[in-house]
Amino acid sequence: MTATYISPARLTITALGGLPEVPAGADLAVLLLEAAAREGVGLRHDDVLVVAQKIVSKAEGRRVPLAEVVPSTRARELASATGKDARLVELVLRESRSVLRVGREVIVVEDLRGLVLANAGVDQSNLPDSAGETEALLLPQDPDESAQRLRAALRARAGIECAVIIADSLGRAWRLGTTGHAIGAAGLPALVDLRGRPDRGGRSLRHTEIALADSLAAIGVLAMGEAGEGRPAAVIRGLEHLAAAESSGERGARALQRAREIDLFR
Amino acid sequence: MTATYISPARLTITALGGLPEVPAGADLAVLLLEAAAREGVGLRHDDVLVVAQKIVSKAEGRRVPLAEVVPSTRARELASATGKDARLVELVLRESRSVLRVGREVIVVEDLRGLVLANAGVDQSNLPDSAGETEALLLPQDPDESAQRLRAALRARAGIECAVIIADSLGRAWRLGTTGHAIGAAGLPALVDLRGRPDRGGRSLRHTEIALADSLAAIGVLAMGEAGEGRPAAVIRGLEHLAAAESSGERGARALQRAREIDLFR
Repeated sequence: MTATYISPARLTITALGGLPEVPAGADLAVLLLEAAAREGVGLRHDDVLVVAQKIVSKAEGRRVPLAEVVPSTRARELASATGKDARLVELVLRESRSVLRVGREVIVVEDLRGLVLANAGVDQSNLPDSAGETEALLLPQDPDESAQRLRAALRARAGIECAVIIADSLGRAWRLGTTGHAIGAAGLPALVDLRGRPDRGGRSLRHTEIALADSLAAIGVLAMGEAGEGRPAAVIRGLEHLAAAESSGERGARALQRAREIDLFR
Repeated sequence: MTATYISPARLTITALGGLPEVPAGADLAVLLLEAAAREGVGLRHDDVLVVAQKIVSKAEGRRVPLAEVVPSTRARELASATGKDARLVELVLRESRSVLRVGREVIVVEDLRGLVLANAGVDQSNLPDSAGETEALLLPQDPDESAQRLRAALRARAGIECAVIIADSLGRAWRLGTTGHAIGAAGLPALVDLRGRPDRGGRSLRHTEIALADSLAAIGVLAMGEAGEGRPAAVIRGLEHLAAAESSGERGARALQRAREIDLFR
């Protein structure tokens, strides 16, 4: 991976629109191939397909009716501390390993997947019709596996070897605003290690690891939009070297998770 | 800004290469216009020009010979705790308001500009020849002002109204690898507030603020590369609506800084 990574000097990003509301069990590969064709961009070998977490979650049946959720005592306590719905808090706790911080309307957790994020990614926006009041959507159970499955389905359906990133908009420490992050990835090195490579003065780089999949997720999510745009995926073209890079090792977006022991801010 | 922001469905990113080593006092506007012309992409109205912090710092004369730096007692203590050069640590302390965390080879600070980052951005990579051993490079004193100046110079030289982002690769809490962040910005809303906008189900978005300038910096820096590529800028095309968005308010990349009082991780 170190040997073959070349930073991409020219990139194009095309958001894909016109998808129908995604039901549980939907074949995302087919929907996304159709959308890419409609958009005139298509999908090619070595493209990176960034897919919004929400449609992956919907396809995987991760919508939960709030009426079926009975909050625990702890959830009710946290609900009154945060001003959140106790049933939502219950879902957040079920999706989490540990609670890191509690603020107004926000509970920052380390979730079951190892992600550090607000409210374990449990969300009510962009659900159809009135479901935003009565349901919540959970993150995919294993987003790296979701990315692998979608990548395999695209290969099977269309014979295309592309990379897949499952992206979500996450808040950050120290900074305002959300940016897209890779919560799942397949077919590309999510984290690229350049340590030991020469810099411009011939000096060896000492610390540089590039969060490739997060950088691609950031622009993918920007192109998709956050509100009512209805563009839940984006095709990024220009990383033709990634297929080669992949052969030397791949660990999914989990590679981007900083272990608790080396995290100064947890 | 809220009224006019439209997420960009198609974007192209072109990294600019072939710049000479940048001396103090260099006219970056001229160098970047020449590079954009050479690359065949040019620079147009409403483009976003992402510029590496390093060439801005070099043009602003922010190289410091280490031989002239006398470490304080505190710098020497922190140097032995971190394994870093005491003169570098002295520069880090001079560039900082407060030290947040100390790890191996890293001091995470809130710097004079309000940025939270490792080693106050003081860096020795990509300096020319052997200067990487004997000098360090500091961040621009006021990157938002640097961005404004460059934007004004591009307008004056070429009559082009573009946005400018000064970008640096920064580490993050919770995640491995660096991504590009906007430390300075002019000509675009660095932070876009979508609160109150309708989602797909007609439900009002409650929390969404988009870190637009950070998302653009992330892909710009990815295209530039981190090592010896010698591509210290990138042109992002496809955000034609930003000129309109700008008219309703602009505060530079400082708008992306989360105030200490509302930061759960400081």
